[in-house]
Amino acid sequence: MNRAVTVVEIGPRDGFQNVEAFIPTEVKLDIIRGLARAGFRKIQCASFVNPKAVPQMRDAAQIAEAVLAQFPQTAWFALVPNFRGAQDAMRAGLREIAYVISLSASHNRANVNKTHAESLDELARIVGELPEMRVAVDVATAFGCPFEGEMALEQLLELLGKAYSLGIREFTLCDTIGMAYPSQIQRALNAARAAFPGCAWGLHIHDTRNMGVLNSYLGIGWGADSVQTAAGGLGGCPFAPGASGNTATEDLIYLLDKEGIDTGVSFPALMETVRAMKRVVSGNYSGHSINIK
Amino acid sequence: MNRAVTVVEIGPRDGFQNVEAFIPTEVKLDIIRGLARAGFRKIQCASFVNPKAVPQMRDAAQIAEAVLAQFPQTAWFALVPNFRGAQDAMRAGLREIAYVISLSASHNRANVNKTHAESLDELARIVGELPEMRVAVDVATAFGCPFEGEMALEQLLELLGKAYSLGIREFTLCDTIGMAYPSQIQRALNAARAAFPGCAWGLHIHDTRNMGVLNSYLGIGWGADSVQTAAGGLGGCPFAPGASGNTATEDLIYLLDKEGIDTGVSFPALMETVRAMKRVVSGNYSGHSINIK
Repeated sequence: MNRAVTVVEIGPRDGFQNVEAFIPTEVKLDIIRGLARAGFRKIQCASFVNPKAVPQMRDAAQIAEAVLAQFPQTAWFALVPNFRGAQDAMRAGLREIAYVISLSASHNRANVNKTHAESLDELARIVGELPEMRVAVDVATAFGCPFEGEMALEQLLELLGKAYSLGIREFTLCDTIGMAYPSQIQRALNAARAAFPGCAWGLHIHDTRNMGVLNSYLGIGWGADSVQTAAGGLGGCPFAPGASGNTATEDLIYLLDKEGIDTGVSFPALMETVRAMKRVVSGNYSGHSINIK
Repeated sequence: MNRAVTVVEIGPRDGFQNVEAFIPTEVKLDIIRGLARAGFRKIQCASFVNPKAVPQMRDAAQIAEAVLAQFPQTAWFALVPNFRGAQDAMRAGLREIAYVISLSASHNRANVNKTHAESLDELARIVGELPEMRVAVDVATAFGCPFEGEMALEQLLELLGKAYSLGIREFTLCDTIGMAYPSQIQRALNAARAAFPGCAWGLHIHDTRNMGVLNSYLGIGWGADSVQTAAGGLGGCPFAPGASGNTATEDLIYLLDKEGIDTGVSFPALMETVRAMKRVVSGNYSGHSINIK
């Protein structure tokens, strides 16, 4: 087992975006500050998307500017679906983004309204025109899709290859609706690492079938460099029917602490923020958050 | 990975016993019949305990008689804390029991009101006087105790040795309040199997910290012959503060199906019973039951 792993907190994006009522910016910032203080090395602070499609994220720039100023040691990054989002993220001061492409063509259409070719063109433009930006690719529905069912590994490798040839060296394989199972993840990680050496690999597992902790933990053992989770198990996907919340960060941190795997995160400090969050943010939770006081 | 494992359904005992209001016998039987039809090879149908201590189980004999008559192919068994319980189980027609002893002396006192020596004396009496009965030992709080914290492996091996010397060859290591973590379980299984060859080993993991599926699944990979789970994640322990529900059977069956591990259980039939159960039985759930319709 790895003795250290990066647990990437994505609740401020994938959690908040699934809350229907607008969460006031200061409430968001209070929670995000709590997460930064809990010790996460890397936090996804927002997504830069069309505010008409995801109104909850309309304050992304304000959020990014505030946290960058207050916590310069934390690796802040944002999700973007297109060039414009990447540009907006850069204007807000961010120097790292996760660019999302769905492996399933139908989910890519539902999620970012693009074909694969269009998504890859836009990625090429980001890489070409914004060289200061560190760009990772998040492959949504990498294992299964609400419209297309289980995804084939060959398709995944093909899409990864196209992004790799554009210079991408960081990938997160996202189980957007929580369909992945352990041996599927193991096969994907092994094949991807063999095919594209010198890359960093992340996992992002929704907890629909209560396999989030299992798949994330096993994935770390199989060499994933990072795992994305959301405090409180908040989350989902507004454009993926059946998606449940993310793997709850606190569940994974508790487990990794027990196994002596260093994450830099203080479990008690995290739980304090989770409790505060649950008092002020209602929304779509995986229901799988740790059951202790 | 093992290609077959026995998932032992214990909801009718460990689930129901944590429901405060008495569940009418016919309602219990409807649910238990649904579980039998779903294909479980082994089901714990009740516990034979003092009805003053656990009033929910006062119809144990009726339940046992009914299910034995209707489903003779299923391996039915009951939990018992003492000789009298074993005798009552036998009178009801059962030929298999799980005798419970807590590794933690303080939990053994709270749970069955006995010292270890008293529990072992009673076990010797059962083995000696009821030779027709197949007797397994369930070691409660095998990994952690609400009163004593994490339990030492040496203590576990010592207690197992005493039961082994009485002729016991089947054991279930029970994580009564959901404190166990993977490497602890791996160490315990490895040490116990090495020290006491020729035994069958089971696991029983509560899901308090959302590690039930993880620990059960990894335990199977580490050679556990069986895992006990409760439909719907119902359960707890009336005499262990902080205990949450059991690992939800459906979560584990879903996972094992995906991994091609044979359990004999039909997932759709199980889900039908779980949904029916949740309509009629309210109680203490782990909250971790699978999140699909």
